[in-house]
Formats: sequence, structure tokens, C-alpha cells
Amino acid sequence: MNQRNPKSKLLLGPGPSNTDPRVLRALSEPTLGHLDPEFVAIMDETTELLRYVFNTKNKLTIPVSGTGSAGMETAIVNSVEPGDKAIICTAGVFGERMVDVTERAGAQVVKVESPWGEPIDPEDVKKAIRKNPDAKILGIVHAETSTGVLQPLDEIAAMVHEAGMRIVVDAVTSLGGVDVPTDRLQLDFVYSGTQKCLSCPPGLAPITLGEKAFEFIQNRKTKCQSWYLDLGMIQRYWGSERFYHHTAPINMIYALNEALRIIKEEGLEARIKRHKAAQEALISGLAALGLKPVVNEPYRLPSLTTVYVPEGINEAAVRKQLLDEFGIEIGAGLGVFKGKVWRIGMMGTNANRANVIRLLGALKDILG
Amino acid sequence: MNQRNPKSKLLLGPGPSNTDPRVLRALSEPTLGHLDPEFVAIMDETTELLRYVFNTKNKLTIPVSGTGSAGMETAIVNSVEPGDKAIICTAGVFGERMVDVTERAGAQVVKVESPWGEPIDPEDVKKAIRKNPDAKILGIVHAETSTGVLQPLDEIAAMVHEAGMRIVVDAVTSLGGVDVPTDRLQLDFVYSGTQKCLSCPPGLAPITLGEKAFEFIQNRKTKCQSWYLDLGMIQRYWGSERFYHHTAPINMIYALNEALRIIKEEGLEARIKRHKAAQEALISGLAALGLKPVVNEPYRLPSLTTVYVPEGINEAAVRKQLLDEFGIEIGAGLGVFKGKVWRIGMMGTNANRANVIRLLGALKDILG
Repeated sequence: MNQRNPKSKLLLGPGPSNTDPRVLRALSEPTLGHLDPEFVAIMDETTELLRYVFNTKNKLTIPVSGTGSAGMETAIVNSVEPGDKAIICTAGVFGERMVDVTERAGAQVVKVESPWGEPIDPEDVKKAIRKNPDAKILGIVHAETSTGVLQPLDEIAAMVHEAGMRIVVDAVTSLGGVDVPTDRLQLDFVYSGTQKCLSCPPGLAPITLGEKAFEFIQNRKTKCQSWYLDLGMIQRYWGSERFYHHTAPINMIYALNEALRIIKEEGLEARIKRHKAAQEALISGLAALGLKPVVNEPYRLPSLTTVYVPEGINEAAVRKQLLDEFGIEIGAGLGVFKGKVWRIGMMGTNANRANVIRLLGALKDILG
Repeated sequence: MNQRNPKSKLLLGPGPSNTDPRVLRALSEPTLGHLDPEFVAIMDETTELLRYVFNTKNKLTIPVSGTGSAGMETAIVNSVEPGDKAIICTAGVFGERMVDVTERAGAQVVKVESPWGEPIDPEDVKKAIRKNPDAKILGIVHAETSTGVLQPLDEIAAMVHEAGMRIVVDAVTSLGGVDVPTDRLQLDFVYSGTQKCLSCPPGLAPITLGEKAFEFIQNRKTKCQSWYLDLGMIQRYWGSERFYHHTAPINMIYALNEALRIIKEEGLEARIKRHKAAQEALISGLAALGLKPVVNEPYRLPSLTTVYVPEGINEAAVRKQLLDEFGIEIGAGLGVFKGKVWRIGMMGTNANRANVIRLLGALKDILG
């Protein structure tokens, strides 16, 4: 067998981003038993740190034992019961995925759509709510990784709550790099992934539930369709009861713990500013190369920039050359944007001027 | 914050077992993009090595991105459709869990039970099949971690196939330490976990599907209720198509890759013999201390030994002393066996005479 020897590349795609070296070291600490008091203390600290990045005091704030997509499924299967109606905002791959997951959970879905690259129009949400006052949840992707749109949540969250519905928010590409206003907007279900702005490998899905959401899962009429993702049971394992559910992914929890400590040390506010500054430098530099961003301010997602591929350029060849000759990964367009855009991530530890300059230099060299 | 500093303990409980140092190093290799050709090569090699430990040529043999319990849920939600009838063998916690998962998948469950610590009686299976010829699957736990029973599968698998049903096998605590006869018995769905006899941290669930099972998932009438665990989609990501599904847990895949390389180097047959020899040494030593195993041969699971707690002994205090003073973890009894038995794992790299002697010495010191 060949030696497995993954090169250290600069991951400026839609995720995973580079793992901080401190986090890589944490991964390799000795595995403890999942009920060992030493490990339980690490679990407790991890939930406390997760509350910090989620801007919340929510009791139920834990990492789900799966990737960001498992976070989406956890939020959905816990927030609806079969036969419930759900309003889902779709404006990209991950909104569409939420529709699929919600339908599989036995709910009836009403879609609110917007063109790719544009935000959801709150007027459309208002209409959907007026037509469907019996809907139980509204699902929305805060940071749409396929388009680079940051969804402004304030107005929509207010309408959802006024209608007595619960809001489910996908913060996979925002948590740790963009403000996620969990408590300020009383968001009910918010989930994320570890491999984006947290600079931790993929494999865990942080999730937090507001008080109303917590009450809902405690008083469901039907069992959650997923045993593995049933938060009613999982919270008894992560809570003081320590009731055995499944074996937590021990070493990945070490990694998340370290990634969150790093964020606490930097300060969330400083980190968010750093992401914004890195994107601004990137946009200026891309403009100098004649490249235009897809999304207009103020809807431009700081952690992921979509940019149009110039006319006559073989986009896949550019990405291949970037990876092979410069060790830099950027992302292709998905769905409607396939072949038309590049997706450039400035996430977590990667979001800095040095990486912007490194990418721009390479791009300039390739594009000529 | 305190420094996170997990001690290296000897994990002789029901899992996780100790992670091999080579596997810990693999965990800390730089994170690659999930579509990077270098990573794709590691995925391919990992599936090839998984086929080796599963004793199979099955095309669809992959690690599911969750823990062993996610493996169970994956097998069940992919093997039944709502309204299907399922026969589930239960003789411990994990059999009961399979019942719960199967009911949540919308199937009607017929139980075949045996007392804790005893194997399922094939006569009972025969009767259940005769009474329920319309059942679609039979689920059984090969290695029941709560009782230490190894289920002999030959006779039961033959009956299931003769009746035209599919067999779903839980090999969480057997894979890599006990023979899992996937191809010999044409087992349809077999799943496992990484943290037992593979000596890899918890977080992945290897699974393999036989030809009939693969055909079934390709021709379902209904969508799999889980998007995250839908093998019809996941196989397109792990297969040559590389169709994006979710971001694989990159560093955990490195770890599994290394853990499987270690098994290949030792040889599966030698490894299985080593597990058996370690248990024999353990049983002799326990007998000398006056401790009696719960399960009789030939149903005794080599990787996990259940032993009765002697009369008048505070079982929790003994476990605490073992952990605090000797750095050795063993497991408590669950369910029916709570307070009555200890569970001693000899799994993966841990299954050797030196660990047996270390445990026996400590036990002798504590029990006096």
C-alpha cells in the first residue's frame, strides 16, 4: 500500500477549511471512555463554549454526532411531526436539501423561493405565512454555501414568531465567522457544522434549541422518527443525567473543544470582523483581476464569496491548476451555478490577508 | 480554563477500546478537501480494506458518517419500507434498540426473545418465520455488548434466506475481533462501529450490503426516511460517480484507514485467534479469583466477557477504584444485568495477555 500522506493544502473552497494545528493535536490525544469523569468534564466545557459562539444561554446546546447535514436532519426531524405543515425558504442547494429532508420527515412543504444569488424577499414570507397560518415551522438557510448569500433574519424571525411558528435556521457556514443572533432573535432550532468557520475537521454538528423548541421536543405526540438523532434522548446523555444513548465521538469532541477555545481566546467579535475584512480584501483584489462578485451587499456572505468565471475560461482547468501547482483549493459552482461561478471560502483560521494575497497571486499567474 | 489533558487509561470496558498510537497519529494529518483526488484515493483504499475485514466482495462497503448506533439506523431505514413487517431477535440492550429503531422506521415488529445471557433459539426463529412469512427482514445482534453473547448465525441465516427474507446483522462488537461471515452466509446488511475491535475512535459505522440488499435499495417504492443515511445516495458519493452528498469526516477516515491497515498487516485470522486467546487467559484468571462468567461456551463472545459480581461486593466502588488507582476502565451491567455483572472488553490492540495480567492484578488487589 502507498503511504497515506495528505499534503497540507490551503483549503479556500466551500469547506472543509484548514484545521488549526492546535485542533489537529487535540485530535490525537488518548481516547477516553465515553462515561469517564474526565471526558464528561470536557463535554460540559464544550457545551459551555458552544453557547458562547451561538450567542445563547440555551440549555440544550450540544454537538450532534454527525456532519453538518446530520445537523439539518436533526433540526428537522425534531421540529416537526408527521402531517405537520412547514414553510421552507429555498434559494440554493441547501434550501432544496431542507425541503427534501422535511418531506422525508412526513411534513407537507410550502416553498418560498428566490433566484440563486439573491436573498429571500420578506414580502414573500409574509404571504406564505398569511396563506398557511397552520404551518408549524419556517426553515431558512442563514448562510447559503451554494450561492454566497447571507440571509438577513431579523424581519423574517419576527414574522414567524408573531404567527406562533418555530424558526429553524441553518448556520453551517456562518457559525464562528458571522454573527448568529440566537438569543437576540429567539431562534428556535439553529444548527451548524464544524468544518467551516470553526476550523475543525468535519464530523460534528453543533445545535442549539430555544426554550419553546425544548418544550416542543419534550411534549411531542409522536416519537421522533430517528432514534439516532432524537434530541429528547440525546439531551439526557449530554445533561446531568448522563443517561447512555450512543458513544460520543470522543476524539472529535476533543477537537471541537480546542477549536472553541481558540475562538474564545480571539473573541467572537474580533473573529467576525476578521472574516469581514478578509472578504473585503478579496473582493478588491478580484476586481483588480476583472472578476465580479455574484452577490450584492448587504447580502454578501463574508465566509464564502461567489464570483463569476470570466468568459472563455475553462473553470475546471483553473481549479485543477490552482490545486496541482499552488496547493490551493477553491470550489466549483453547484446546480444553477455549475460552470458559471467559483466559490471562495475565507473561513476560520484561513480568513486573513496573507491567504487573500496568496490566492490572488496564483489566480493572476493562471489567468494571465 | 483547565488544560484538557486526557490520561492514557486502559480501556477494558464495552468500548471504546484504546486507539492504536498509529491511528492517533493518522487523525492529526492535515485535513484535505472532501473531493480532493488525494482524499478520494484514501476513500477507495478504505473501502477495499473494509471488504477485507468484512470477509466480502460486496461493492457497497463503506463507513457511514456516524457512530455504531448510526450504523444500526442506516441498516434499518434502508432495509424496510413503512408498513413492512420485521422479525427482530432481542436478548439484550442492542436487540431492544433495534426494535425501537425499526418501529420508528414505520415497520411492524415481531420479537423473538431469549433470556439475557443466552443465545436466541433457532427453533423460536423458525416458528416466527412460519407465523410471519410476509416479514421482509430478520434483524439480529451478532455480538450483544450488553450480555456478552455471540450469536451463531449459520442456522438462522439459512432459514431467513429460505423464507425469502433479508437478514440484518449488528456486528458492532465483533468486526475485527471475531469472524463476521458476510459472504459465506450471504448476509444482506451488516454494520459495525470503529471503537471496538478496530481500535479506532468512535465516530464511524462501517456497513456492507449484499447483492440482494443493494438491489432492494435501488428499487424501493418509497424514499428512505433519512436523507443523511440514505445509502442509495451515499453510494453515489463513495462510488465512481463521486456525486456530492455530505462532507465526509475526513480525519476520521484517515484514522479508519490506518486502523484497517494495521489489521491487514496482522492478518484477520491471527487477530481473531488473539482475541480468543486473550479471553481464555482472562476466564482462567477470573476463575482463580472466584469470578464466574455469565455466558457458556460456545456462545461466549471473545471480545466482551460478562462476569458475575461476587455477593456482597459494591460493584460501582470496584470500578471506581480500578479507574482512579489503576487507570483501568471496565463496564457496568446494563438493564437486567445492572449491578449484577461487570463487562470486560478485550478488543483490538488491547486483546493480549499483558492486559489480562494487569487487570487481574488490580482486581486481586481490590477484592483482597
